[in-house]
Amino acid sequence: MNKEELANNSIKCLDKGFVRLVDFMGDDSAIVQAARVSYGNGTKSYREDRGLIRYLMRNSHTSPFEMVEFKFHVRLPIFVARQWIRHRTANVNEYSGRYSEMTDEFYVPDLIQLRHQSKNNKQGRSEQNLELHHAENVLKKMKQSQKNSYNEYKFYLEEDLARELARINLPLSSYTEWYWKIDLHNLFHFLRLRLDSHAQFEIRIYAEAIAEIIKKIVPISFEAFEDFRLYSKSFSRIELEFLKNIIDKSKLKEKALLDLGLSKREATDIIDFFNE
Amino acid sequence: MNKEELANNSIKCLDKGFVRLVDFMGDDSAIVQAARVSYGNGTKSYREDRGLIRYLMRNSHTSPFEMVEFKFHVRLPIFVARQWIRHRTANVNEYSGRYSEMTDEFYVPDLIQLRHQSKNNKQGRSEQNLELHHAENVLKKMKQSQKNSYNEYKFYLEEDLARELARINLPLSSYTEWYWKIDLHNLFHFLRLRLDSHAQFEIRIYAEAIAEIIKKIVPISFEAFEDFRLYSKSFSRIELEFLKNIIDKSKLKEKALLDLGLSKREATDIIDFFNE
Amino acid sequence: MNKEELANNSIKCLDKGFVRLVDFMGDDSAIVQAARVSYGNGTKSYREDRGLIRYLMRNSHTSPFEMVEFKFHVRLPIFVARQWIRHRTANVNEYSGRYSEMTDEFYVPDLIQLRHQSKNNKQGRSEQNLELHHAENVLKKMKQSQKNSYNEYKFYLEEDLARELARINLPLSSYTEWYWKIDLHNLFHFLRLRLDSHAQFEIRIYAEAIAEIIKKIVPISFEAFEDFRLYSKSFSRIELEFLKNIIDKSKLKEKALLDLGLSKREATDIIDFFNE
Amino acid sequence: MNKEELANNSIKCLDKGFVRLVDFMGDDSAIVQAARVSYGNGTKSYREDRGLIRYLMRNSHTSPFEMVEFKFHVRLPIFVARQWIRHRTANVNEYSGRYSEMTDEFYVPDLIQLRHQSKNNKQGRSEQNLELHHAENVLKKMKQSQKNSYNEYKFYLEEDLARELARINLPLSSYTEWYWKIDLHNLFHFLRLRLDSHAQFEIRIYAEAIAEIIKKIVPISFEAFEDFRLYSKSFSRIELEFLKNIIDKSKLKEKALLDLGLSKREATDIIDFFNE
Repeated sequence: MNKEELANNSIKCLDKGFVRLVDFMGDDSAIVQAARVSYGNGTKSYREDRGLIRYLMRNSHTSPFEMVEFKFHVRLPIFVARQWIRHRTANVNEYSGRYSEMTDEFYVPDLIQLRHQSKNNKQGRSEQNLELHHAENVLKKMKQSQKNSYNEYKFYLEEDLARELARINLPLSSYTEWYWKIDLHNLFHFLRLRLDSHAQFEIRIYAEAIAEIIKKIVPISFEAFEDFRLYSKSFSRIELEFLKNIIDKSKLKEKALLDLGLSKREATDIIDFFNE
Repeated sequence: MNKEELANNSIKCLDKGFVRLVDFMGDDSAIVQAARVSYGNGTKSYREDRGLIRYLMRNSHTSPFEMVEFKFHVRLPIFVARQWIRHRTANVNEYSGRYSEMTDEFYVPDLIQLRHQSKNNKQGRSEQNLELHHAENVLKKMKQSQKNSYNEYKFYLEEDLARELARINLPLSSYTEWYWKIDLHNLFHFLRLRLDSHAQFEIRIYAEAIAEIIKKIVPISFEAFEDFRLYSKSFSRIELEFLKNIIDKSKLKEKALLDLGLSKREATDIIDFFNE
Repeated sequence: MNKEELANNSIKCLDKGFVRLVDFMGDDSAIVQAARVSYGNGTKSYREDRGLIRYLMRNSHTSPFEMVEFKFHVRLPIFVARQWIRHRTANVNEYSGRYSEMTDEFYVPDLIQLRHQSKNNKQGRSEQNLELHHAENVLKKMKQSQKNSYNEYKFYLEEDLARELARINLPLSSYTEWYWKIDLHNLFHFLRLRLDSHAQFEIRIYAEAIAEIIKKIVPISFEAFEDFRLYSKSFSRIELEFLKNIIDKSKLKEKALLDLGLSKREATDIIDFFNE
Repeated sequence: MNKEELANNSIKCLDKGFVRLVDFMGDDSAIVQAARVSYGNGTKSYREDRGLIRYLMRNSHTSPFEMVEFKFHVRLPIFVARQWIRHRTANVNEYSGRYSEMTDEFYVPDLIQLRHQSKNNKQGRSEQNLELHHAENVLKKMKQSQKNSYNEYKFYLEEDLARELARINLPLSSYTEWYWKIDLHNLFHFLRLRLDSHAQFEIRIYAEAIAEIIKKIVPISFEAFEDFRLYSKSFSRIELEFLKNIIDKSKLKEKALLDLGLSKREATDIIDFFNE
């Protein structure tokens, strides 16, 4: 897939938002190129790029991943933007309500997203939906309230109240938009946190769209990210001791590991770890 | 003023906000200490700390100012927080509406702040107030709308809608709070932008409170910041050529400059500049 | 241990270097304080700080750890400084060879550190020492060469060659010094990489000294760092599938995990993970 | 000039170094594009991009300049690399002497660069050259010493001493190389400091090469950078008071300023400033 095709790619997110790849610099080969400068002859033995990229990801040699850069155009609700902006190692240009008039677009959740507060997860929603007529009532109220807020805003503008003040009662569900530029290493960090099941559903939707887009540009790195980060699991010191005691060492065979697709080095490492 | 006294200092901001210094590390002497490591014998000739600090500020040797750190507790409206957070080189822990219930505190501007949109400044408010009965009407509407929004929020919570969704129609005028930690160099950058007359009035109030607090802790650095940054002015290449042509060189005397308090070096520099 | 006692603490590193804690801001309680702002009522149930800190570390809620700051004075060889400086989220003031004369101090390894190139680790030294008379020969050469370099440097200075040029043939083993300031989250990242067995021995010595110092100031956080980061191990997607197949599920009992010191939540998580 | 032509551009620096543009993302139009999202309708009145870019630069609206990214491949002496790396907001992959063998390339200054220590500038070299036979002697010594250091290094490698130790007596004049990626805003900051007459000559050469390359890619931004940053001058609070007193106000005419190429807004600002 070439740059032109991708640049026109835009993925709809939530009810009125989107993620659109505007530009990018580099791909898997740029990572390999940078790594080979760093590790020089040390990387001669990696005959193929895939092996090198997976080695870098596995061993947290993160700087070569910083050599790839992505720029997105995103439309998103303000409450999502507030979570997103916490990722500081990125560049942002956001639509300004001081310079320009805000539009009358607000996020309205799907009925199915209206869930009860989670009982065991203090920050999130549970799997349990509101009863239908309650949910419908909530949605109706939300829409009416958004409409009222926007009318209020328009009234202030008609009074010629400065835009920077007129906007202050607009709701957090208001849509904003921005250009967002980030390198691949920091984007993986963003994705790891925002694809997580504990991330709020509304930002997860954007993370999934971004993942969808970048996996076409850096397929090898993305697969390595999935294997060694996203779907990995870290065990604490105590948990590791416990694991050592409950595994069946007779099944700890190199062949089994190689058959699963591990490299020789990875297989040796895991066997050594449990036998030491 | 010692650490204990300051730590209890809190300055009210806007109608329901505040800035409170929670902790800090270092003061003017920490800057001098770090600079003397960098410039070693090179700084022997500066007999006093004030001279060294002013030299550092004037010559953009910014790293010693990074050696001082401040931590504030701030309560502020969300629309102010959104401008504030754009300063990325800082550490933040914000109150989370996912974990906890939002309070019913909203920013209501003073009547006198209800100004018309500026005509020559696209981002700001003018000096001209709304007519009194219009202004009173706006304020009444704002308060009513905030009350409605909070009732709406409470209703959603009673329906046991997840907090992370219940909050989405709360207005940008809602108060939030956070811990904010930043080094002095980056804080000066924040202050330079946010004390500026183009900054929105509401964030300027916070910048002024912070300035008030830190000038007691780093008085020499703060004065240097005022002289060489805050109240300085930069002229472009063309403007400088113009200035050279319109100054009265007969008045360009070292004595006059020294009398104003410039150092010998500063006086020589300015004379050389206009005579070259 | 109070601030005054610590501030005078200095740990010797290598033959002529040291790490000295100059100042710090905050401790375990500052982390708890910041977290409770973020997670508000959400953290009510954690009756004790230790539980909260371990929860934060385990779930990668890293921002509260950024609220603690350390400032060190370090003397170190330039080749170590070059590895160290790659950690960008920190503040540095280094001794400048442009401003000041370099001293005649150079790192000379202990005899026992003169090891062969590792065969399976492209970046490191093996466990195998050089034969004694070879090692002694190497050390003698090193010292002689350092002496020659310094004489060369002094000669250039006597010729009144600018210091910034006179120094260019000084060796990478030359000692430099700096002030280094960093927050606890980024310091943990530094320690994780630099305490690792793959880190060069000479920087590891400094990382160990820093660990020694900070564990007195943030004992609970440091223990959590050891448990969930330093001595943790991450398994890839494939490795996890393999592990699920080779553990003896009959031994996967909550009681066993609780007896090891895991929290109820941690125990449940691990059991759920292997049973899903 | 298109991407392919530029990508093959490499500029020699010093005796054995170079700067080569490897890739870039965006140009002047990307800055305009990002700014128009931020300032929306507020920028409608800027009929042309040049006006907008100059407005952004003049008013320190720096974030749109962060939307352009450059990646360079650089070969440079280690003492230059040590100054360069202090610019932290960039990405680096450097050749590693732990993984790979160092080459026998060292920086030897031109005879004409062998200058005396500056008397009034503590960090730099003066305009005054060493006497010829002294300079020749210095150069001869430098080359001999570099040759000796490399022979020493090769000897250690032959003894199979670990590379990470064998290199420690190599001089700071050794060439290294790296990939360096940075956004335009931070690159301008780098250039402002490193094109300055107080920067060490050897790094200035690299800054000039980089300036040469990027001015072809972002010509409008680069000109604005020159006008409002590089060739601008900032006057302190006291200096401004002094200037107000020594200018001939009869010459402060809008027409004169417009004739010099200032915008109407710029002309008004400067007249207002001196008349207030």
